[in-house]
Amino acid sequence: MKFNLKTKFTFSTSILSIDKEIKNIIKEINKDFLKKDPSKSIEINVINIADNSMVLDIVSFGNIRPHNILLQIRNNLNKELGKKHHIGTREVQIQSYNIEFELDRPPLKEFSIPFAEVKIKEKKVTMILKNVEEEFLRKNYIDRMINLIRDKVENQYYEGKGEFWELIWESSEKKPLWSKDPTEEMVKLGWLQQGPTKGKWFYRPQITAIFRTMEKIAIEEILKPLGFQEIIESHIVPFDIWLKTGHMEGMPGEFYYVSEPSTRDVEKWERFIDLTKIQKEIPHDELNRNLSSPTAGICYAQCPVIYWSFKGKTISENSLPVLLYDSTANSCRYESGGRHGIERVDEFHRIEPLYIGTKDQLLKLREGFLDRYKHVFNNIFDLEWRMAWVTPWYMSQAGKIGDKGTQETGTIDFEAYMPYRGNRKESEWLEFQNLSILGDKYIKAFNIKAQKSELWSGCSGIGLERWVSAFLAQKGINPDNWPNNFKKYLNKLPVGIEFL
Amino acid sequence: MKFNLKTKFTFSTSILSIDKEIKNIIKEINKDFLKKDPSKSIEINVINIADNSMVLDIVSFGNIRPHNILLQIRNNLNKELGKKHHIGTREVQIQSYNIEFELDRPPLKEFSIPFAEVKIKEKKVTMILKNVEEEFLRKNYIDRMINLIRDKVENQYYEGKGEFWELIWESSEKKPLWSKDPTEEMVKLGWLQQGPTKGKWFYRPQITAIFRTMEKIAIEEILKPLGFQEIIESHIVPFDIWLKTGHMEGMPGEFYYVSEPSTRDVEKWERFIDLTKIQKEIPHDELNRNLSSPTAGICYAQCPVIYWSFKGKTISENSLPVLLYDSTANSCRYESGGRHGIERVDEFHRIEPLYIGTKDQLLKLREGFLDRYKHVFNNIFDLEWRMAWVTPWYMSQAGKIGDKGTQETGTIDFEAYMPYRGNRKESEWLEFQNLSILGDKYIKAFNIKAQKSELWSGCSGIGLERWVSAFLAQKGINPDNWPNNFKKYLNKLPVGIEFL
Repeated sequence: MKFNLKTKFTFSTSILSIDKEIKNIIKEINKDFLKKDPSKSIEINVINIADNSMVLDIVSFGNIRPHNILLQIRNNLNKELGKKHHIGTREVQIQSYNIEFELDRPPLKEFSIPFAEVKIKEKKVTMILKNVEEEFLRKNYIDRMINLIRDKVENQYYEGKGEFWELIWESSEKKPLWSKDPTEEMVKLGWLQQGPTKGKWFYRPQITAIFRTMEKIAIEEILKPLGFQEIIESHIVPFDIWLKTGHMEGMPGEFYYVSEPSTRDVEKWERFIDLTKIQKEIPHDELNRNLSSPTAGICYAQCPVIYWSFKGKTISENSLPVLLYDSTANSCRYESGGRHGIERVDEFHRIEPLYIGTKDQLLKLREGFLDRYKHVFNNIFDLEWRMAWVTPWYMSQAGKIGDKGTQETGTIDFEAYMPYRGNRKESEWLEFQNLSILGDKYIKAFNIKAQKSELWSGCSGIGLERWVSAFLAQKGINPDNWPNNFKKYLNKLPVGIEFL
Repeated sequence: MKFNLKTKFTFSTSILSIDKEIKNIIKEINKDFLKKDPSKSIEINVINIADNSMVLDIVSFGNIRPHNILLQIRNNLNKELGKKHHIGTREVQIQSYNIEFELDRPPLKEFSIPFAEVKIKEKKVTMILKNVEEEFLRKNYIDRMINLIRDKVENQYYEGKGEFWELIWESSEKKPLWSKDPTEEMVKLGWLQQGPTKGKWFYRPQITAIFRTMEKIAIEEILKPLGFQEIIESHIVPFDIWLKTGHMEGMPGEFYYVSEPSTRDVEKWERFIDLTKIQKEIPHDELNRNLSSPTAGICYAQCPVIYWSFKGKTISENSLPVLLYDSTANSCRYESGGRHGIERVDEFHRIEPLYIGTKDQLLKLREGFLDRYKHVFNNIFDLEWRMAWVTPWYMSQAGKIGDKGTQETGTIDFEAYMPYRGNRKESEWLEFQNLSILGDKYIKAFNIKAQKSELWSGCSGIGLERWVSAFLAQKGINPDNWPNNFKKYLNKLPVGIEFL
C-alpha cells in the first residue's frame, strides 16, 4: 500500500523567517516515525513555505497512514513553535490524498464509491481524494473505503452464483394428499383474504386455529423441552441496532420504515385535519411537514433487539446457555415482486429462539434442536422434507460463500416438498425453517460478555406462515386426513363466518 | 343559508348577437328550478355579456346550491345553443362564491379554515371563496367546509371541559399489598428494561410470564365462554381505512407512520449502502430519496382492520352475532409527553374483541361481558376497581359529550385504584379496560350488511400492559402474596437471566 497525502498547514503568522527551523522539526518528526516502525518507509517533505503557510507531502508504504499522523505533526509544531516564537497552527487543509493498493484479483467491471475517484489497472487500485476535510480523515473513513473497494470487487465474482447448498439429510418420500396451492383453496373457502396492503393477509378463524396449533406445537414440543424462556420485545427497531448487526447495509431495500410525528401539538396538525375533513383524502405534503425522518423500521428478524438487550452486559455463568424466544414482534419485509400466497409475504409471524452460550453448549443445543425438529416434522406433521447447509445472509452479503469448513458456525435450511409446484425432483422446495450458529459475530457487535466463558450465539426462526404452508401443501385442508399426531392438537376447525 | 355564486361562462364564439336568447334560456332554467323547489328561492341573473363570455350571478336560499346546478346550466346552454347556432360552452370559471349561514351559538375565538375566508359576526357566518376551480365545487368540498366551521365553533365550547364521566359501579375497598410503582421495582429486579426506542419495553421472562397469564385468563375466562373466535389481522393500516373510521382526522399526531422503499433494486440502494459502510451512520437524504411517502401506519386500535375485512359484505343471519378477536397486531401510539412505566407506552399488546350483531344481541352481549369481567377482576384478580360511562373518543373529537341518553351506545371505562399514586379518593385511577357499543357508525362506514337484520357493532380492548399494571400495583410482585385464584394460573415465575 502506498499513501500520498498533500496537506497545507496555515499558521497564526508568517513563518518565512523560521523556515529552516520548521524544516528541521519536520525532519525530526520523520525520524521519530521511522524509529517506531523501522521496517516501513515514511517520508515527510516540506514542499513549499510561503508567508503563513506550509505544504507537506507525506508518503508512506506501511502501517503508518499519513492521515493518522496529521494531529501528531500539528501538536509537535505547536509545541516547538509556540514555546519559542508564539506561533501556532490554525488550519490543516488536505489538498489531495492518493492511496494505492493491490487487489487479490482484478475487477470484472467498473464501479464507483462515494468521496473518491477510483482508478483500477489490473489488480492495482489508485484511490484519489481531493479537498477533503481533516475531520473526514479522522473518522476512519479511509480504511472503510479501502475495504469497500475490496468488497465490491470480491462481490463481482459471487454475483449471480447460486447460494452454497449441501444436503445433510432427507426424509423418505411421502405420498402427498393433494397437489393444490393451499392459499388459493383457502381464499376460495373464505378461510383467509388478502390484507388491506400488499403482501399482508387477514386470517379468518379456520386458518388462525391452524396457526395457533403450530405455535403450540413449537412451544410444547421444541422450545419448552429445550429449556427456552419467553421474552417480549419491541417490534420497532432503531437504525443504530441495524448498524451493529449489519442489516442496515445488508438489506435497506427490504425494510418497512417507521416515522414518528414531529409533534403531537394539535395546532400543528390543524391544517392537516382541516384538509382531510374537507377533501376526504390525505394531504401528503402537509403530512410530510409534520413527520420526522425515519430513524427506525419494523422488525425484520427478532434477534437484533434481543442481542441489543444484552448490550455491554456480563452474563452470569449460571445463566448459560441463555435460551430465549420472542413470538410477539410482527415482522415485515418489503418483498415487491416475489410475493406468493401465505408462503412469501410482506408481514409474517415468527417465533424466534435465540441462544447465547459456549461453543460446546451451542453445538450440543444444535443436536437437541435437530432431534426436536425431526420429531415434529416426522412424527407430528409426517412431512417430506430435507436439511441442507446454506450460506447465511450476512456471509452472502459480504460475498463469502460457506463451505464445509463453516459447519461449526453456519446455517441449516429445512426445506419441504410443495406438491402443487410440481415434480419433487425439479420443483423448488419451500424453506420452512432454519437453524444457525453464528460464532461471536453478534456477541462482539454488542459487546456481550460472560463471567468467564467465551460466548457464541445463534438463532432459529420458526415462521408460522412457512410451517402452515408446508404442512397444508402436503396434507391438504381437510382435518380428517391429517396425521393422527397432528389431530391430537387440532382435529376440528372453528365454524368461521358465513357470507351471502 | 344564503349562497351567492358569480360565475363566468366562456363560449366557443361571440354571443353578442344572441344575448337576448341566452337571457331567455337562463330565465327558463331559473323557472324550472323554482318549480322543483317552490318553497325556496333561487335567482339566476345574467349580469354581463361581452364578446364570447357571460357572467352569471346566482343567489339561492334553499336546498338548491348554486354550485350543484352549474353543470345543468351548462348542459341546457349547450343543448339550446348547439342545435340552433352551433355554439357551445368552453369553460366555466367561478369568480366568487359567498355563503352565509347561521351558527347555533357564536364562536368563542377566531379561527380559519383552508380554501376560504371566514367572517363571523355573532352567529352569522360569511364564507368567501375566490377563483376556485369548477372541479373544487363538484367534489362536495363546500358542504364539508360548512360542517367544519360548525364543528370548530362547537369544539370551542367543549375544549378544556373534562370528559363526561358517570359512575356505574364500584367494588369494595381492598387493602393494597404495597404502594410501590411496579414498573420501577421490576426495572430494579431486571424483569424488564426500557426498549430501544421511546415508550417501548423489553419484557424479560418473569414479566412475560405474567403477560401470558393475563392473556390466558382473558381468553379462557372471558372470550371463549362468550363464544369468540380468533382471527389474525395485519398490523399495517392503510390511510383509506383510517379515513373511513375517522382516525385520520381524529388523531394524526398519534400514529406511527410507515413508509415502504420506493424500490428493492440493489443498484438504487448502492449509494446508500456505500455511504452507510463508510460512515457507519445513516445518510438520511439518500434514504429519503429511496422511500415512498407514507400511505399507512402501525395499528392504533385493532378494530378498523376487522371492520375493513367485512367491507361491502353481507353476513348470514346464522353467523350473528359475529364475535371475533385479534391478539397479534402490536399497537403503537405516539405519546410524546405522557409516557409512564408500562402503564402509558408507545407500543402495547392488546386483545381486541369486536362484535357485530343486532342491537338486542349486543345489549345482551354487553351484559355477558360485564359478568365475565366482574368475575375476573373480583374473583381472580381481587381488584379494587369501578366502572363509569365515558365519552368515546370519536364523540369527544366531534365535540359531542355523552349523556345518559347514549347508554344504549357508548363506552364504559373500567378503572383500577393505583396505590402508588396516593389516596384512593384523590389520585387518578388507571383505565385498564373498556367496553363500547358504537351503534351503526362503523357498520355504515364500511357498508356492512346482514341478510335481514339491522346491524350494530362494538369492541372492548383488553390491554395486557394495563391489566398487568393494575394487578401488580395492588397485589405486588411477590407471587406468594397473589390471590389464590390467580395463583391457579401462575404461582411461580421463571428464573430469568442473571447478570453480573
